[in-house]
Amino acid sequence: MSKLSTLGEFGLIEEIKTRFTGAPLPAGWHGIGDDCAVIPKDANASWLYSTDFLLAGVHFLSDDMPPRACGHKALAVNLSDIAAMGGTARAALLSIALPHDMTTEWAEAFMQGFHELALKENITLLGGDTTKSRHDVAISVTVIGEAENTNIKYRSGARVGDIIAVTRALGASAAGLQSIIKKEKNKDGIDAHYWPQPEMQIGKFLGTQKAVHAMMDISDGLAQDLRHILNASDCGAVLNIPDNLIHPAATLDQALSGGEDYALLFTADAATFDQLEKAAQDELGRTLVPIGKITANKGECEIMYQSQKVTLPKEGFDHFRGMR
Amino acid sequence: MSKLSTLGEFGLIEEIKTRFTGAPLPAGWHGIGDDCAVIPKDANASWLYSTDFLLAGVHFLSDDMPPRACGHKALAVNLSDIAAMGGTARAALLSIALPHDMTTEWAEAFMQGFHELALKENITLLGGDTTKSRHDVAISVTVIGEAENTNIKYRSGARVGDIIAVTRALGASAAGLQSIIKKEKNKDGIDAHYWPQPEMQIGKFLGTQKAVHAMMDISDGLAQDLRHILNASDCGAVLNIPDNLIHPAATLDQALSGGEDYALLFTADAATFDQLEKAAQDELGRTLVPIGKITANKGECEIMYQSQKVTLPKEGFDHFRGMR
Repeated sequence: MSKLSTLGEFGLIEEIKTRFTGAPLPAGWHGIGDDCAVIPKDANASWLYSTDFLLAGVHFLSDDMPPRACGHKALAVNLSDIAAMGGTARAALLSIALPHDMTTEWAEAFMQGFHELALKENITLLGGDTTKSRHDVAISVTVIGEAENTNIKYRSGARVGDIIAVTRALGASAAGLQSIIKKEKNKDGIDAHYWPQPEMQIGKFLGTQKAVHAMMDISDGLAQDLRHILNASDCGAVLNIPDNLIHPAATLDQALSGGEDYALLFTADAATFDQLEKAAQDELGRTLVPIGKITANKGECEIMYQSQKVTLPKEGFDHFRGMR
Repeated sequence: MSKLSTLGEFGLIEEIKTRFTGAPLPAGWHGIGDDCAVIPKDANASWLYSTDFLLAGVHFLSDDMPPRACGHKALAVNLSDIAAMGGTARAALLSIALPHDMTTEWAEAFMQGFHELALKENITLLGGDTTKSRHDVAISVTVIGEAENTNIKYRSGARVGDIIAVTRALGASAAGLQSIIKKEKNKDGIDAHYWPQPEMQIGKFLGTQKAVHAMMDISDGLAQDLRHILNASDCGAVLNIPDNLIHPAATLDQALSGGEDYALLFTADAATFDQLEKAAQDELGRTLVPIGKITANKGECEIMYQSQKVTLPKEGFDHFRGMR
């Protein structure tokens, strides 16, 4: 019997994709392979669907993480997927499985964190499931969003010559996780890890910009997530990592492959990138961080930092192998 | 610190409801309190959403249950919620968390069972999440369905004088679970427990019938689930349990409060119930099982069997207290 560890998370996804490929989707529907599934709403708009697990011991350290942060993060990571498609989140379904020895205080604080973010982003909780769990806390959230069809950005839209950019510095969450494990102080890093801020406003803004061709959120680390855009768009990339990509609390390695950043990664027309940067600054006070260019070298991704080539560890962030 | 066991599953749902009540829903939206959440699709139809957890050791016995059955059941219990609203299921999101020592054979058989039911019911798998789990298999499925607005049945529609009926005999799944635990033979019961058949066809049929006023599926046992209709519709009930309500493999107690039947429970106009029975027989070859009447005695539920009053154990099926 072959163990699942040899299959891995992405192997399982490939297996699922293969099994369900062949049945053609109805017109306007998009399935596996982007941050959200898409179902047409009317002639001009679509519904977006994202779902994510949050499991104790895998996605968070249950003894350390404040339950209010846990409730926040369970919703935030799904909102981030809606932002990554250029959409607006509208509603959520929340399923919680709790072990028998869990306290009502934990459950109440969890719901407080979930509810505060729901109120801030105007999300309606429409239903879900509650059950007991034999060992660990398990949370599953599905978020329903919507977007004008012309604003939806897919991973497959990148074009040769596009500038690759992100919406903020990376690595703070991974640095924070290390600090939590080592019981070190690192307020910015730990906050980034416990309280990820989904990029709802700038995601919607980038959705409205015709110059933006491909977009996704960074949940598994920049290097690994960029590969999804390169594969879906059948192209390559050359990155020249600027210092302002690396969060002050983080190392280069954490910025490139730390995971759980929930910044947005996108590609945009090079000729009008200056105007895009100016608009982001003028309308939202946000600084875009260009980090490289899309090339025609399919599947190739060269990463330079301070004129040196960066070699990444072969294995990126993979929940089957645990947190980095 | 108060333990969650004192809160219980329905206590937690009440806590969540209270927290999210007050924010009025947009017109045509329905949230917590029915088998599905409802969001308008167009002037005449709505989208339906159901989500359910399936956890090893809570909802299934991982050492005994064939993984193919596990994949079937994870989808079936959600399809049942769509049937319970009178809808047609269209798409699913599937999240799986697997422990490190899980085999690829398990994962493949699970996907086979899921896929076979998806093909049969014409369900598109649109996305999901895969991750590792520290201890147990955890599965979360969200199903998206649709229905004409005039066909959607809610728990709140029951009227005094309505006949209460179910779509098939009950208790086989609970009997099967007992047989599995005791390692006894009981093919019909064990099949019912491992391979629940969601009532897609008769659910849609009952949806089209104006005489049907309230509907839900039976997942926690008839007695407990009927309470949801009585509470939502502000009425009571008198049941006269006929022998054909009790599945040949089951006891009276298993039929009344065993759980996981996934038959449909509905109330319908008494004056035209004969016609409804005839139509179900003529169009689908199905025999409806009338079991009692809706009364004006709010919250009261009297259960008679062979002219004797039946007293139920105080606690029904509750995943926080484990399987019965």
